[in-house]
Amino acid sequence: MKVGALLTSAGINIGLCILFLSFYSVLRKQPQNVKVYFGRRIAEQHKRLRGAFILERFVPSPSWIVRSLQCTEDEIVSTAGLDAVVFNRVLVFSIRIFSLAAILCLFGVLPLNYFGQDMQHEQIPSASLETFTIGNMKEKSIWLWVHCVVLYIISGVACFLLYMEYKHIARLRLLHLVRTTTNRSQFTVLVRGIPKSTHESFNSAVESFFTSYHAPSYLSHQVVYKVGKLQKIVTGAKKVYRKFKHFKGTTVDQTCRSVTYRCCLCGVSSNSFQLLPTEEQEREKPCVKNSNLNLPAEECAAAFVFFKTRYAALIVSKILQTSNPMKWVTSLAPEPKDMYWSNLWLPYKQLWIRRIATLLGSIVFMFIFLVPVTFIQGLTQLEQLQQRLPFLKGLLKGKIMTQLVTGYLPSVILQIFLYTVPPTMMMFATLEGPISHSERKKSACCKVLYFTIWNVFFVNVLSGSAINQLNALSRPKDIPMELARAIPLQATFFTTYVLTSGWASLSSEVMQLFGLIWNFVRKYILRMKEDSDFILSFPYHTELPKVLLFGLLGFTCSVLAPLILPFLLLYFFLAYIVYRNQFINVYCTRYDTGGLYWPIAYNATIFSLVLTQIICLGVFGLKESPVAAGFTVPLIIITLLFNQYCRMRLLPLFGTFPAQVLIDMDREDEQSGRMDEIHEGLHAAYCQSTDTESADDISLERVQAISTTDEDGSGSSGEPRGKESVGQPVSDLSHPTLKGLPVERLRRAVRSLGFMIRLQKRGVSA
Amino acid sequence: MKVGALLTSAGINIGLCILFLSFYSVLRKQPQNVKVYFGRRIAEQHKRLRGAFILERFVPSPSWIVRSLQCTEDEIVSTAGLDAVVFNRVLVFSIRIFSLAAILCLFGVLPLNYFGQDMQHEQIPSASLETFTIGNMKEKSIWLWVHCVVLYIISGVACFLLYMEYKHIARLRLLHLVRTTTNRSQFTVLVRGIPKSTHESFNSAVESFFTSYHAPSYLSHQVVYKVGKLQKIVTGAKKVYRKFKHFKGTTVDQTCRSVTYRCCLCGVSSNSFQLLPTEEQEREKPCVKNSNLNLPAEECAAAFVFFKTRYAALIVSKILQTSNPMKWVTSLAPEPKDMYWSNLWLPYKQLWIRRIATLLGSIVFMFIFLVPVTFIQGLTQLEQLQQRLPFLKGLLKGKIMTQLVTGYLPSVILQIFLYTVPPTMMMFATLEGPISHSERKKSACCKVLYFTIWNVFFVNVLSGSAINQLNALSRPKDIPMELARAIPLQATFFTTYVLTSGWASLSSEVMQLFGLIWNFVRKYILRMKEDSDFILSFPYHTELPKVLLFGLLGFTCSVLAPLILPFLLLYFFLAYIVYRNQFINVYCTRYDTGGLYWPIAYNATIFSLVLTQIICLGVFGLKESPVAAGFTVPLIIITLLFNQYCRMRLLPLFGTFPAQVLIDMDREDEQSGRMDEIHEGLHAAYCQSTDTESADDISLERVQAISTTDEDGSGSSGEPRGKESVGQPVSDLSHPTLKGLPVERLRRAVRSLGFMIRLQKRGVSA
Repeated sequence: MKVGALLTSAGINIGLCILFLSFYSVLRKQPQNVKVYFGRRIAEQHKRLRGAFILERFVPSPSWIVRSLQCTEDEIVSTAGLDAVVFNRVLVFSIRIFSLAAILCLFGVLPLNYFGQDMQHEQIPSASLETFTIGNMKEKSIWLWVHCVVLYIISGVACFLLYMEYKHIARLRLLHLVRTTTNRSQFTVLVRGIPKSTHESFNSAVESFFTSYHAPSYLSHQVVYKVGKLQKIVTGAKKVYRKFKHFKGTTVDQTCRSVTYRCCLCGVSSNSFQLLPTEEQEREKPCVKNSNLNLPAEECAAAFVFFKTRYAALIVSKILQTSNPMKWVTSLAPEPKDMYWSNLWLPYKQLWIRRIATLLGSIVFMFIFLVPVTFIQGLTQLEQLQQRLPFLKGLLKGKIMTQLVTGYLPSVILQIFLYTVPPTMMMFATLEGPISHSERKKSACCKVLYFTIWNVFFVNVLSGSAINQLNALSRPKDIPMELARAIPLQATFFTTYVLTSGWASLSSEVMQLFGLIWNFVRKYILRMKEDSDFILSFPYHTELPKVLLFGLLGFTCSVLAPLILPFLLLYFFLAYIVYRNQFINVYCTRYDTGGLYWPIAYNATIFSLVLTQIICLGVFGLKESPVAAGFTVPLIIITLLFNQYCRMRLLPLFGTFPAQVLIDMDREDEQSGRMDEIHEGLHAAYCQSTDTESADDISLERVQAISTTDEDGSGSSGEPRGKESVGQPVSDLSHPTLKGLPVERLRRAVRSLGFMIRLQKRGVSA
Repeated sequence: MKVGALLTSAGINIGLCILFLSFYSVLRKQPQNVKVYFGRRIAEQHKRLRGAFILERFVPSPSWIVRSLQCTEDEIVSTAGLDAVVFNRVLVFSIRIFSLAAILCLFGVLPLNYFGQDMQHEQIPSASLETFTIGNMKEKSIWLWVHCVVLYIISGVACFLLYMEYKHIARLRLLHLVRTTTNRSQFTVLVRGIPKSTHESFNSAVESFFTSYHAPSYLSHQVVYKVGKLQKIVTGAKKVYRKFKHFKGTTVDQTCRSVTYRCCLCGVSSNSFQLLPTEEQEREKPCVKNSNLNLPAEECAAAFVFFKTRYAALIVSKILQTSNPMKWVTSLAPEPKDMYWSNLWLPYKQLWIRRIATLLGSIVFMFIFLVPVTFIQGLTQLEQLQQRLPFLKGLLKGKIMTQLVTGYLPSVILQIFLYTVPPTMMMFATLEGPISHSERKKSACCKVLYFTIWNVFFVNVLSGSAINQLNALSRPKDIPMELARAIPLQATFFTTYVLTSGWASLSSEVMQLFGLIWNFVRKYILRMKEDSDFILSFPYHTELPKVLLFGLLGFTCSVLAPLILPFLLLYFFLAYIVYRNQFINVYCTRYDTGGLYWPIAYNATIFSLVLTQIICLGVFGLKESPVAAGFTVPLIIITLLFNQYCRMRLLPLFGTFPAQVLIDMDREDEQSGRMDEIHEGLHAAYCQSTDTESADDISLERVQAISTTDEDGSGSSGEPRGKESVGQPVSDLSHPTLKGLPVERLRRAVRSLGFMIRLQKRGVSA
């Protein structure tokens, strides 16, 4: 590939980017798109932006960029949670390290590479990109020490920055813990694998166990009920209910415009189905203590146990309870709104099998995916492809066509295939049996990350020209050499990958193309009610691996093929602006891992660093520079030692909470008298009767809008980019007497079908 | 190698074995050897066996075998601790599984192999051993399913037996915990990495931290003092003291014969150096509270913290204390007699570096060791060796000579080199910084095991005929094939290895050749006092890897070259008798890991099983039997799943103690009023002033004989077989007023040199 082709590609992409961003700055001012671009804000402030028709609305403006840059870290923590800050810090780290790398490599390494061989240089636009890589250096060149020194500086500064970020995020995590004093999950232990006994129910087994062994700190407990088959009927009923809610809403909602919408496909009037609640029913609470419903729900071998202090809960969650490690398994409960209820019903002893099965499944998926990647790789070697498919020859005669096919098409195809990955991995993560939404997303994030690094980076590099890449992988000793040979050659592909996949994905992220189109379709074609929209939660499992992959590309190419760095740096700058904007305006944070994405990002960065060093070692070996190669070995050892130190010093903070902090919090709460208040709220927080609604009740309180949750998110529904459909914000529920309505309505519907659900809170003992 | 050569080798070894065992049965009856063969019993019962000169003493008898077989598991637990039982169970497991394997393979597989090819069979004595291996099977043979079925049966039964043993040992471990109610270590947490502060001593820092955060359960604490340079002088003084002790003993010891021994090299009379203690000094206790010694010992950033209950100690040891995981690091303390004091003074933050350094060190050592192994391998390929060293040709003309060299010499040379390994690994384990003797030995055991499996098994197999074995290792995909090709060929070597290394090591173990010779030298040449002997503790770090290696050889060769099995089975039977005898009579158990050797043995066995299956997969592939190969794959998966299940179900019990058991124990002790008694004994148990003597005080109470400990054991002293020199049993200390003497004597000696040691117990707060 020539410099010209690269510039063509860059030109196209920069143009597209600017176009999209301008579009965005216009579209976001249109009132009909307000749900798409300000979902979080709308949900939070519960107000509508209704602008008049003014010209200003149609002029692109950069004000959103300014606002995005101005917001502080504290704001992000408070609006989007700690995970958003972690994501933000990853971007900041990338910008810092790659700014340095770009300066060093463009002014130090690039000229050396370009003038590395005594050759007649063509004009730069028609110069091959390979002349800018280390491949152009002469063997046994005395200038290779510059590359080695640059590698040292980059590694050293990267480690230093990583350490600072690690410390900063660990501090934030503790601060976050201290700030969320009312977090019920800190007092709650989830017990699984309660042993079955014929003469005792789970309920009394839990009570007798904890009163016997943890009497001083034990408060109460709540057994988890398996709703089983009923659940399916309930879910079905819910869906039916939801469909009719909009129509019903017109007769009940007094605050909204009482306009009756008609479904444009079937023309049924809303009045044909009336489900008005009586006052008596409205007064019923979802968690009624003594309602005598006939059908008993099946008890699960799991229970929430509440403790008097945070420290007591932590202790019980960390200590092995009995001599059978598969029974009475304790762990700190996830936050109520984070609970993934349906997995709670899985028997604990099944989980390890599930974990292994999904691991195998994802590995198989990773290898099956080689097929499209191999095909794409063929595209960059046009000659090979033309030999195999002769009919392409005519098509590829034009110069622009060739440049487009080699420079642009492979990335686009790869991109399309990659869209299927997050939903698949989310499905695997769901099958694994996590008990919280955040855990599921984290697991999916790891899987997608491994997948991306393997399929985008390694397979592309190692397959090179050979189609049978597995051969190359069977000789691990040769891998550094193989990588050293391939990376400078593949740098071209990676540069275009940054241009297409990176920039384009940011544009589409900020544009929210799917949301925009769906919004349009629903509004003007399906003519559904305006506000019944989805608010998405941030798709960490697609975005974090993407950013980390670009980090990997940046590190590995930095010294060897520095031409990628300016494009990469632009990507990170843009990402910084775009993602901050999205955090503030678009996505809703329902659950938070408390910064647990950081260790993933950290590990990926250390991996990238060490891989870079190994590749450089290989390159220096190939270039027969024993001095440079010799000096690289201690660098690898130092980096690994640094990694070990961080694992010792900081990683434990991400796995547990320090006793000191928890005890101090407990004391403060006790002294201020807040403790009783917290204890009272514990049961209601984990009230299972409202099932997924319980989660939403809380988010309702907070964001005042979300009412029902689509349980399975994007994982199985296979939406593009795997975003989760979080819930429907129903603004017509703002009337105070209607808040508890959906569940009541639902109960009536189910009852009328002849089924009863035992919804009341059970298993509470003094 | 022919069957004849194998039988020659077997004949020699069986003869030697019978000879040694007969010798043993005679030697053990001689009163002068009683310290060698009944060290533990002598130490325990403190009586001497003095037989008259009767003929029966010189007639070999098998009675010791009967006694060894008769002793029950409970006896072993009570006399030699849980680790001995674990060792015993490993042998039982091996006997069971290899009995089955021997029956199946000798009657099912061996005939198939022998008649595998249509060939003229020679007479069996001159038949090549290769005709008995799977290498003799025809390709695409329809009989390979028999091998596959046998593999299935062996794997299935092995897993079943492993699971039963695992469960049994886990149960024993809990029983052991419950039985040792007076074990002080259960109440004690070792805190390391106490933060330094200018205005507060470690002592008050510990007190304020634990009274602040663990007030309800905190009892008291004891800071560790670094004796530093003084320690060296003390150690020197001790040595001097020890030298003169024997002479002094003659004037003090009233119960023993008052015969004055003279050193036969220098003729100094014992009366020339008198160190008689005054009564006043005798009454001084080692832990004097208010003795005003001038020189303050330096405080260490480590302390023992005592808690009121076992459960409280467990909690504190398992929970992260502060937001800096490198400060206030807590762990359950080792038993007092197990403490490795000098490592306690190491700063905690240094440990991770030490661990990495020793890991690297042992890996380097493993690879350096390739040199002798490669040489040995050359011996089995005599033709190659003769080409390289032509002068050998004349020497090797004789048939017996050739058989001896190929069948016997390689193992002997390998054996000699292997003797240097345990001391080296023990040194590495010491450098790692373990805080207990048992931990150090366990670490050394792991290192020796990896070393043995790598250097004896893999290098021998993979090097085969090629000298550059590293080439073979750089292609992991080919390793199964490589192994499949090599194992049947190398089975001969392994068979002779079992004969020489296995049987001979057992003979030398039971004979205690080194102890015997040393005893003789000391008694009749150096003319030292009879009873000042070493009682060794069992060298798990040499014996367990040996047994596990034979298990690995057994599994890998079972289906492929079954001729090894009868020899192996004989080895295990003999080992069962010999080691039980040694546990009962010879070795003294000062410390115990509480069964922690079992996970090592379990992992090694699972590794052996999976490796066997992979090799068989390779062999079936080579023999072009897709059915057999296809059926082997699920077997591997099932075995790995079984392993995972065991890790989930049973392994956690070896890492911690269940809360339920500890709480029940605490309750029982409180109800019976034993608790106060235990609390009172805590300080004395971990009294550092007596340093290593403190350990011995306790063993003195128990075994009534040991007085001083050689701190560094065999690790650095480099004794053969790496056994630890545990202590000198001084029978003349049986006089009650002399029990506290050695320390007092020592103190006086040190004081007279102008140094003072601050020996009193400090840091005790109510």
